[in-house]
Amino acid sequence: MFTPQPIGYVRSPYHATKQVPKGLDARHDVEGSLEILPQFEAGLADIEGFSHLFVLWEFDRVEGFDLTAAPPSDNRTHGVFATRSPLRPNPIGLTVVELLRRDGRSLQVRGVDMLDATPVLDIKPYLSSIPAEKLRRGWLAEAEARRAKQA
Amino acid sequence: MFTPQPIGYVRSPYHATKQVPKGLDARHDVEGSLEILPQFEAGLADIEGFSHLFVLWEFDRVEGFDLTAAPPSDNRTHGVFATRSPLRPNPIGLTVVELLRRDGRSLQVRGVDMLDATPVLDIKPYLSSIPAEKLRRGWLAEAEARRAKQA
Repeated sequence: MFTPQPIGYVRSPYHATKQVPKGLDARHDVEGSLEILPQFEAGLADIEGFSHLFVLWEFDRVEGFDLTAAPPSDNRTHGVFATRSPLRPNPIGLTVVELLRRDGRSLQVRGVDMLDATPVLDIKPYLSSIPAEKLRRGWLAEAEARRAKQA
Repeated sequence: MFTPQPIGYVRSPYHATKQVPKGLDARHDVEGSLEILPQFEAGLADIEGFSHLFVLWEFDRVEGFDLTAAPPSDNRTHGVFATRSPLRPNPIGLTVVELLRRDGRSLQVRGVDMLDATPVLDIKPYLSSIPAEKLRRGWLAEAEARRAKQA
């Protein structure tokens, strides 16, 4: 397979995993930036026209993986591919961010949930959404319903 | 950085790049499957509750990359990170598929745009969408508008 290389790094207010909001109530409206390396700057041409971007990045502060995960949003375990656990066979994170502005090779974004200095692997334009009424959210919806019942 | 490993392979009706629908009119409702390797099957637990999945995969039939791309949907070039070009610094593809059913370690999905035998890197649940009215689609919207004018 290919050899991953960073195209840049995340600037984030989060410096430790425990600072990142997690679980059902987590809001992800924190601002940060994607600092793209000079040799990749030409790849950003015309990106400023998109409101939202997919960011692929490396979970660079984890070791190994676990096929089951106990997400903070539930008290039950689930298969890792049904969660956003960092302990994945390929430690690749995916975050949708809102692009606020571009300053040269720095992209100011909202919705950062990565740690500071996280390596960025790829950026792609977010082109379309699945309509809300067509989405089923599995165990997450069930966990929400269980919690609402307890409240 | 990490060393990528396949967690499984795509079964797709497409065997050559030119068979995959591309550009503004491309429909992606073709069915295929994600065949997960036995050693990763436990990671699929509870995935059947989700209607849509993010699939990360490797563009395994490309060599090298290009920082500018000429997408089939436009007659102008754009930075690679503003496109879905396969010739990316990290050759990782991202596709949103609809999960039709799970048969053991085989996920039947709709919306395949990968070639047959493409290595799968990761699967994540699709949890929420950006509302359509908040999306701006940059050069793609402009290319659509230019084409509509010509029609």
